[in-house]
Amino acid sequence: MTENTRILLRRQCEGLPEVEDFEVSSGPMPEPADGQLLCETIYVSLDPYLRGKISGRHMSGNILPGELMVSEAISRVVQSNHPDYAAGDIISGFTGWQEYSAIDADTVRRIDPSLAPLSTFLGILGMPGLTAYAGLLRLGEPKAGDTVLVSAASGAVGSLVGQIAKIKGCRTVGIAGAPEKCAWVTDVAGFDDVVSYRNTDLRAELDRACPDGVDVYFDNVGGDMLQAVMERLALGARVVLCGLMAQYNEDGMPPGPNPAWTIKARATVRGMVVYDHEDLRAKMVEDVSGWLADGKVHYLEDRAEGLAEAPAAFTRLMRGQNVGKAVVVVGSE
Amino acid sequence: MTENTRILLRRQCEGLPEVEDFEVSSGPMPEPADGQLLCETIYVSLDPYLRGKISGRHMSGNILPGELMVSEAISRVVQSNHPDYAAGDIISGFTGWQEYSAIDADTVRRIDPSLAPLSTFLGILGMPGLTAYAGLLRLGEPKAGDTVLVSAASGAVGSLVGQIAKIKGCRTVGIAGAPEKCAWVTDVAGFDDVVSYRNTDLRAELDRACPDGVDVYFDNVGGDMLQAVMERLALGARVVLCGLMAQYNEDGMPPGPNPAWTIKARATVRGMVVYDHEDLRAKMVEDVSGWLADGKVHYLEDRAEGLAEAPAAFTRLMRGQNVGKAVVVVGSE
Repeated sequence: MTENTRILLRRQCEGLPEVEDFEVSSGPMPEPADGQLLCETIYVSLDPYLRGKISGRHMSGNILPGELMVSEAISRVVQSNHPDYAAGDIISGFTGWQEYSAIDADTVRRIDPSLAPLSTFLGILGMPGLTAYAGLLRLGEPKAGDTVLVSAASGAVGSLVGQIAKIKGCRTVGIAGAPEKCAWVTDVAGFDDVVSYRNTDLRAELDRACPDGVDVYFDNVGGDMLQAVMERLALGARVVLCGLMAQYNEDGMPPGPNPAWTIKARATVRGMVVYDHEDLRAKMVEDVSGWLADGKVHYLEDRAEGLAEAPAAFTRLMRGQNVGKAVVVVGSE
Repeated sequence: MTENTRILLRRQCEGLPEVEDFEVSSGPMPEPADGQLLCETIYVSLDPYLRGKISGRHMSGNILPGELMVSEAISRVVQSNHPDYAAGDIISGFTGWQEYSAIDADTVRRIDPSLAPLSTFLGILGMPGLTAYAGLLRLGEPKAGDTVLVSAASGAVGSLVGQIAKIKGCRTVGIAGAPEKCAWVTDVAGFDDVVSYRNTDLRAELDRACPDGVDVYFDNVGGDMLQAVMERLALGARVVLCGLMAQYNEDGMPPGPNPAWTIKARATVRGMVVYDHEDLRAKMVEDVSGWLADGKVHYLEDRAEGLAEAPAAFTRLMRGQNVGKAVVVVGSE
């Protein structure tokens, strides 16, 4: 019987994760129980929220040392013990960093491979896509003509936020780091402007790119970048707090912006958790796959080849060295 | 001709204001121009926002050394140069800390003395009333059964917030300092519970009084109290940022709560500025005067007798030593 290669968390890590915090393990092929599917993994998703899970502080539950690294993946059904699925179906589920999985059919989603490339169901058509779509449209309430500012703008969430805002008639400004990411944000993703946070005076750059202030800020970062933007909100601004990349690798809780900035702008600041917005998923897939087919939406993917590369790819993601949505290619389509 | 006594700002003050930061001045009776009213002051309002104006950092404009202390007051028209007003009318306007004023009729509001005691038009039927009414009902979105927590709960704004929330079927918890204020909050204003921030473990007290978390927090204070409440928000909580008493007397901008608390609770945090909600004033006066007549709403007033007492009363307000809405009795009704 074929062996199943899996990647486990070796130890709870402090600070930035290292490749040594993970270990490769080999075990028997899983046996699907009644109601389960045996799946072979095609693409594994690497996402910033995993940082919280491996340090014991994520709201959706934690991963302990010795346990499988659980993240979302796209898989092909090899054997189905559930009437709704058959061998050959493509599904998305939290099957984790492993070659094969046995998973409850009730917990997976069927993927329609005719809509878009399979890996996009981990990116702009997956959880990052829903995060961007619901966070911007439901919580950010963009109006045509608004200046919409997005941090981590070349990332899976940020790039889609800006492109949807553009489709809705907004002026879009991205914040990104490396020059090639900044170039992609304007030249390919079509943002109106981009602000680099590297080797620049961030506040002066924000003033240049957002001369009338910021109507909608979609924040994937927190930290001083959030502070700098709060100082520049337009009256009635909406701030969507979605991610805290600046503090995922820190212990403790650094303070945030003074509440006076929210009062001064009469702003609305909302906390975004994607799990609350499943009701928008079907509409998101319909809209975003349509925009993708029409060439109105572009995405970047940072692919690592082979399951064994997952730890290294994850440590790059945690250092902001990925370019686009991080996926690990585990099997063939 | 009668002299007009006025109180001026003597110097821009650092830290807590002192009586010596103000000076009494005497001048000629003002002469009303066309379109103006000559008014005699009955009640002068003292409000926390004045702290920002005398240190040069208030959004509605500042008061400079040598200038009249401008705040809202209730006055009687002595002479009218405007067709809509006649001698004897009662008006509310920003006439300031003086016995007589000449003011543009376009900038004042007519008061109906039959609705409620005159001084309440500076409190629960005035700007504090509108702040409470619009802040709670429009921005706080209370639902029956919600736990509504209010800081500065014996104050003009806070006490009304809690009482309106109670009328709307919420469970109401106030935060106050001195024992007599705490007693008033529950025994007279009818809050369900009260938390004292003096000589207590604030966080333990909040846990006791809000065992299911806080659905709506109406914040008049900021600072560590805001931090403590953010840690205890219920899912989907609304936070109305209305006042920053904790920092009015500080220089600079202390940091605020980490954005993670907002995300964790999927909370909505809104900045409140009362000037944005003038459209609700007529409805507020109708509702609150009705509740007052029905005995459903109570208020506390901290009266100082005589214009010369205004500086001392203001310094008490800035130290939290007032009990209820601070007014100065300048003339007779």
